[in-house]
This record gives sequence, structure tokens and C-alpha cells, in this order.
Amino acid sequence: MNPITELLVCNTCRPPGAARDGVAAGQQLFEAVQALAAADPGAPRVRAVACLSACGRSCSAALQAPGKYSYVFGDLQADAASAADLLAAAARHQALEDGQIPWRERPESLRRGTLARLPPPA
Amino acid sequence: MNPITELLVCNTCRPPGAARDGVAAGQQLFEAVQALAAADPGAPRVRAVACLSACGRSCSAALQAPGKYSYVFGDLQADAASAADLLAAAARHQALEDGQIPWRERPESLRRGTLARLPPPA
Repeated sequence: MNPITELLVCNTCRPPGAARDGVAAGQQLFEAVQALAAADPGAPRVRAVACLSACGRSCSAALQAPGKYSYVFGDLQADAASAADLLAAAARHQALEDGQIPWRERPESLRRGTLARLPPPA
Repeated sequence: MNPITELLVCNTCRPPGAARDGVAAGQQLFEAVQALAAADPGAPRVRAVACLSACGRSCSAALQAPGKYSYVFGDLQADAASAADLLAAAARHQALEDGQIPWRERPESLRRGTLARLPPPA
């Protein structure tokens, strides 16, 4: 069985220099992802996470599923375009047996913003 | 049962500006970790990985185990001190049920160098 991909969005991300009060950019990105996912019955699981420890490259998000490659992305904008890119990558991750998304198949924003990729546990 | 922690070391890491030929710094770090681990029967599992996609912050390494938090570290030196820090963190990760290593319990070099932390899959 193909395990379900989780799209994790850090909802405490505040890009360097951003105000410390008001709604965090990470929360805005999470809500943008949720809004798009709600309109798509085939959307992957989306989860807000308080801090992916990638604060210096916020906004940040990640893809993971048991037995698959994991990805961490940073430098994301808190907008609908980034949300769409994340959901597209999550759908690709879900479809691939090992979750390893070739560079060319990643949305442009996620190529530049790849912070790390982990193989599945041995 | 407490799953076994894996310490992944990128053995293709070449820090920005480093020569493209000769033994990669990542391979040197991997060998330093292996040498220390060989002397410790309780050492965690160590695995070389060709690229963690954290090239801009090399040398890099990661900790993971099924059902636990994962960590990616960067800006590591290819020396015995970094190898010892990684093995100490791996032992702490192994000992903790959820693998979440408090900031204060991380070796200094790994506090500064934490690139990302992922929660276990839901």
C-alpha cells in the first residue's frame, strides 16, 4: 500500500525582519494551503506544525510519508502560488513509490528552496 | 520497542568554495564518524548518503528513526570533534522516546547548525 503523504506547514514561521506580532506568515501560508486543499478531494493530508527549526529560511514546509524520502522547503512566500506549488509537490510525492521527486519535476520555487532531503530509514 | 537511530552523513558534501577534486569533506566526516563509532559497541547505526540536498550548508548530517523526530544539521567541520558531537546527539536521540532533543542538550555545534526538524509522521 502506498502510504499517505503528509504536507507539513510551519505555522509559526515569521521571515527574518518580519513583525513579531499579528498573524504569522506561516499561519497565512497554512491557511492558503488549507483553502486550496479543501477544494480538492484528492489533496494530501495537511498538518500545521509549530516550528520546523528552519526559521532562518522561513516560510517553511515539508513532505513526508513512512518509507519514503522526506523533503524540507524554505524561502516560501505566504501566498496562493506557494500553496499551489506545495500541493503539486505533495501530489507528486504521493504518487511516487519512494517519494523521491526529480529536480525537474519540482515546482520552480521548491527547487531553489529545497533545504534538505532525507532517505527513508534503512 | 525503541527503534534504532540512524546517523546519516552526506559523503558527497563539499563546502562552498572547496575544491571539486580530491576526497570530499563529507567523506572525511563520514570516515571520522565511522572511526569513532567502531570504538564504541553501543554506537548508533551510521550510514553514508550521497547528498542530503543541504549543499549550501555542507558538511551535513541527519538523525532519524521510525516514529521519532528527524533532524538535519549543517555547517559541520570534517573533523573528529564534529564526529563526536554527531554521535553524542545520535545517542541522545536513541535514548529519547520521541527523539526530540531539547536545545540545551544538543552539542553547541549542532545548535547553530540545525537546518530542520521534522515531527514523526502522523
